[in-house]
Amino acid sequence: MRAAIPYKQENAKSRLAPVLTQTEREQFVELMLRDVVYSLREAGVKDIDILTTAEYSSLSDLDVNFVIDPSDLNESINKYLERMDQPVLIIMADLPLARSEQVKEIISFEEDVVIVPGKGGGTNVLFIREPAEFHVRYYGMSFCNHCSIAKDMNHSLRIYDSFLLSTDIDEPHDIVEILMHGRGLSFEYAQKKFELESSRARVKLTSLR
Amino acid sequence: MRAAIPYKQENAKSRLAPVLTQTEREQFVELMLRDVVYSLREAGVKDIDILTTAEYSSLSDLDVNFVIDPSDLNESINKYLERMDQPVLIIMADLPLARSEQVKEIISFEEDVVIVPGKGGGTNVLFIREPAEFHVRYYGMSFCNHCSIAKDMNHSLRIYDSFLLSTDIDEPHDIVEILMHGRGLSFEYAQKKFELESSRARVKLTSLR
Repeated sequence: MRAAIPYKQENAKSRLAPVLTQTEREQFVELMLRDVVYSLREAGVKDIDILTTAEYSSLSDLDVNFVIDPSDLNESINKYLERMDQPVLIIMADLPLARSEQVKEIISFEEDVVIVPGKGGGTNVLFIREPAEFHVRYYGMSFCNHCSIAKDMNHSLRIYDSFLLSTDIDEPHDIVEILMHGRGLSFEYAQKKFELESSRARVKLTSLR
Repeated sequence: MRAAIPYKQENAKSRLAPVLTQTEREQFVELMLRDVVYSLREAGVKDIDILTTAEYSSLSDLDVNFVIDPSDLNESINKYLERMDQPVLIIMADLPLARSEQVKEIISFEEDVVIVPGKGGGTNVLFIREPAEFHVRYYGMSFCNHCSIAKDMNHSLRIYDSFLLSTDIDEPHDIVEILMHGRGLSFEYAQKKFELESSRARVKLTSLR
């Protein structure tokens, strides 16, 4: 099997702009990617492909393959899947709460397709045993899309229920989850930049600047 | 073992006010409670205590016990735990995505305490094998509080990772998750009131009124 991580650094995570500058966001997405790669390695995944539009020299220490394609997310993943003759785990780069135990469990299931839903109808992780027969449709209600695609192809399907893997980091309040449940580089970074402010009702993120 | 569900109906879920009137919110919390009770029953939980400040005649068909206490959430739960001589599962009433398989798994663990975190540092489910020795501290960073309390008492602790159980229904965008992953009465209700609007970026809730 291989893992594929779609990745984009330039002006990434614009919805974090209220709490992080562009340079900080670009640093932060790299750290989150490194945490994801770390968990994959810890789970024993040897072959990792980073799907990007440009090679990043800052990542050269990671020992991953770069698959460079200027197409959009769906098109580039679908071209990648088409030529795959082994199972593929597509995992998003903004899942720093991913743990190796979860990766191990997901790739051990017998079903043809495993989907890990994200908040708001997203697909955060997708494990596909026969990738050449499958295609993806990210954005919007991609969770429903991917369930339908598996069904239409008569592929057996498992939905994997995980809070940690449902937590993609898009908005400031998502960083609360990193501070609560994180480890690794993105956790250290968040700890340097923010603290948690607790009121009776909710926990809020406060900048340390 | 017993299950305890803290419950309040009057003017509940004020953060849903942008999309539901007070009467609708009061109906909706009752349906969510019924879905939680259904999952507990399906998991084989026989004794269910509803901790409230008033008895609700509308719930008389549920075959549950009412424990009526005008104190606040923490005080009333702690008084309840003090007199318990059997394991207690505290589960919130706004978790309509709870499934019986999860309940079964949580109550089967050997650890003294099982905590299911909610979004933003909350505690959505808490299973306590020795309740008379434990106390709760909800609100704010209750997840951290409950981890510390277990640790301070030398109780073994398991953190249970579940997206469905992390999803307490507080804000309009949480209803998206009911429409995506729900079943039961709250799902039917949400389907009558809302539909999902999908754009490239995110899924949004639209009122059908």
